[in-house]
Amino acid sequence: MTSGSSFLLAARQCEIAELEELAGTAELVGVIGRFIHALQRERGMSNVFLGSGGTRFGPQRLQQVAECRSCEQEVRAQFGRLDTGSSQARNGARLFSRIAVVLHGLDALPALRQRIEGRAIEAREATAAYVKLVAGLLAVVFEAADSATDPEVSRALVAMFNFMQGKEFTGQERAFGAGAFAAGSIDAAGQQQWRHLVESQQGCFQVFGDFADADVLRVDQASRDAQVFAEIERLRRLGCGGHPGPLDRNLSLPWYDGCTRRLDAMRTVEDMLALHLRHLCEARIARARAELRDQRALLEALAAGESRTALDAAPAYGPHLERTLPAMLQEQARRLQAMSDELETVRSSLNERKAVERAKGLLMAHRQMSEDEAYKALRQMAMNQNRRLVDVAEAVLALADVLPGAEKDMSSRA
Amino acid sequence: MTSGSSFLLAARQCEIAELEELAGTAELVGVIGRFIHALQRERGMSNVFLGSGGTRFGPQRLQQVAECRSCEQEVRAQFGRLDTGSSQARNGARLFSRIAVVLHGLDALPALRQRIEGRAIEAREATAAYVKLVAGLLAVVFEAADSATDPEVSRALVAMFNFMQGKEFTGQERAFGAGAFAAGSIDAAGQQQWRHLVESQQGCFQVFGDFADADVLRVDQASRDAQVFAEIERLRRLGCGGHPGPLDRNLSLPWYDGCTRRLDAMRTVEDMLALHLRHLCEARIARARAELRDQRALLEALAAGESRTALDAAPAYGPHLERTLPAMLQEQARRLQAMSDELETVRSSLNERKAVERAKGLLMAHRQMSEDEAYKALRQMAMNQNRRLVDVAEAVLALADVLPGAEKDMSSRA
Repeated sequence: MTSGSSFLLAARQCEIAELEELAGTAELVGVIGRFIHALQRERGMSNVFLGSGGTRFGPQRLQQVAECRSCEQEVRAQFGRLDTGSSQARNGARLFSRIAVVLHGLDALPALRQRIEGRAIEAREATAAYVKLVAGLLAVVFEAADSATDPEVSRALVAMFNFMQGKEFTGQERAFGAGAFAAGSIDAAGQQQWRHLVESQQGCFQVFGDFADADVLRVDQASRDAQVFAEIERLRRLGCGGHPGPLDRNLSLPWYDGCTRRLDAMRTVEDMLALHLRHLCEARIARARAELRDQRALLEALAAGESRTALDAAPAYGPHLERTLPAMLQEQARRLQAMSDELETVRSSLNERKAVERAKGLLMAHRQMSEDEAYKALRQMAMNQNRRLVDVAEAVLALADVLPGAEKDMSSRA
Repeated sequence: MTSGSSFLLAARQCEIAELEELAGTAELVGVIGRFIHALQRERGMSNVFLGSGGTRFGPQRLQQVAECRSCEQEVRAQFGRLDTGSSQARNGARLFSRIAVVLHGLDALPALRQRIEGRAIEAREATAAYVKLVAGLLAVVFEAADSATDPEVSRALVAMFNFMQGKEFTGQERAFGAGAFAAGSIDAAGQQQWRHLVESQQGCFQVFGDFADADVLRVDQASRDAQVFAEIERLRRLGCGGHPGPLDRNLSLPWYDGCTRRLDAMRTVEDMLALHLRHLCEARIARARAELRDQRALLEALAAGESRTALDAAPAYGPHLERTLPAMLQEQARRLQAMSDELETVRSSLNERKAVERAKGLLMAHRQMSEDEAYKALRQMAMNQNRRLVDVAEAVLALADVLPGAEKDMSSRA
């Protein structure tokens, strides 16, 4: 075979290696989904446990902690399986940094649980700690989606990330609503924040709908219990749809239960997403291997035919190979171009989150804010101006050049 | 050390591995620059050789062929050094595909030279074959620039790619102008094409100016011989600045010589670009290694202090590490975010070429055009409408949805 042919085959092998790495990432994402669900349940129970002065969900909470520990072991095992030693992981720097943040959060989890058990922490603070940990886990999923090089797999990962993020907003809404009902009243700011959580969910499920596979969408449809939906909608209207004022404390429990049923139903969709992702990776790897095999066989046959008929050294190719290799090269170029175009389309759906992250970073740098403060500031602007979070983020980024210190910050990096 | 710390260190090691891979790519790009220059000289001499009925540049051409062969060996050796077996190269699929195209072109080079030697080929056809080979080599450089993950290195590679591409347009202008003067006349279409070559150069050198390092820009300034520039401008005005009509055949030689002097001077800038790129990679690797060393030492010291003072198992961290690890994690997140923002800015300068590539692909698919025809069609539209190539390309892409067959093509890929 010619050296041109062997590079053509090497290019294919790289694609296969990338797909295999993606398959490993997909596995990790599936395990993270299960862990997040367990953490969401633990968070919800801890919230009620603390809010009820330790009278409710005591034993269930401990059972859920055990469930969480087992999921955590799975996640840690998956992290351990990542080959951190080889330094060859694609997007390794970002992925490993996100994982470092998660591991740091996990190490702090036993102490958090002790404080919850001893009721030495406010419900709000405990919830915030879980929210942060879940956000760290979702950031790992986001990096996985952002680094995928295969458009089909990337599409599935984007659907999965958005579903998981939307589900997390549902979990946050459950906690927020349960707290508001339990407090017996809500003010205008609280209602605004509640509505923001609803809109955030809708945004995520919209993207999920755009990118998810038809089978997954059918499972999603089937998971939607009309009665649960109606009940959640009714309670939402009472909580954040009318005028600020008193709320019926007795609604805290039905609200919590309704949301919990919805969250558990979503878990089946997540399982389906993980399954679809795994099958997709397997199918893509099998297809790429078959194509590699065909290509190699074709090139070897042509080379063999060539060496039999080649009586002089030049030209280097027989008539067959002369016709076939350029065609194969052109086909490969077209295929990679099409993949890259499609990948760009899929990835642009992730730019919304990136803009928010960048705007947060900007506020942190120039206004000496913590990450939390920066996010809250953006959210407040979005709510006050009745705009989407991403639009506010982009407005902040557009102002970057005129913010004081922006230039200094740039040059200090150079 | 905690597992969080070890992932933090692993993230750093990934960055170093990426930089080392980039250093190898930078080496390859430097060698390709030398080879392209040799090919441009061979192309120019072959052009004159064929145009003069074999009376001019005969011996010089053979000497240049020998020089080219030596550069080709270097390039092949660099290709061979790429680890195609490990399938771990970042962006390997695209890079290796581009290399396969180049190797195929190189294998056809001896036959091309034989035809030139025997004057069994038209000057125009010979030039087109060299142009195609150089385009393939530039595509390798483009992939290298597009896959760089370090913004500083990416910036240097973007400057280098644009300079090399601009220089290639200069080489094409030399051939085009020499042919036009030798023919003794030029029509309106020819003038338009000539002006297009001038504008293409300006676009490339503009981007080069935006991204090149100050030292490189100084060398570029120093390389500009005012007399040569004035002569080229004068001859350009005669060739494509006035009305179509007769040209002085005697100007072919001074035109060719002026352009050749300019091209040879550009070669010194390319050398400086390659040198700067190599130094930059070395400096970045050294800096990243030093940072990794510091970080590891800090984490080990903290872990050692922790294990001496830790009398019970929880909490997992001593007060030092509690303060330091989160700070390190946040600093790392901020740094990666800043790098990714900067990288995005640098890369967006490459989108122009990508749009043209995509538009070409679209025309090839929907109008059954060859790559050459598609490029010529885009160029013709740009010239007729007096718009930039990228604007026409984007207009074509915007029409993609309504082009017949677009949908069919999408579904056949799914």
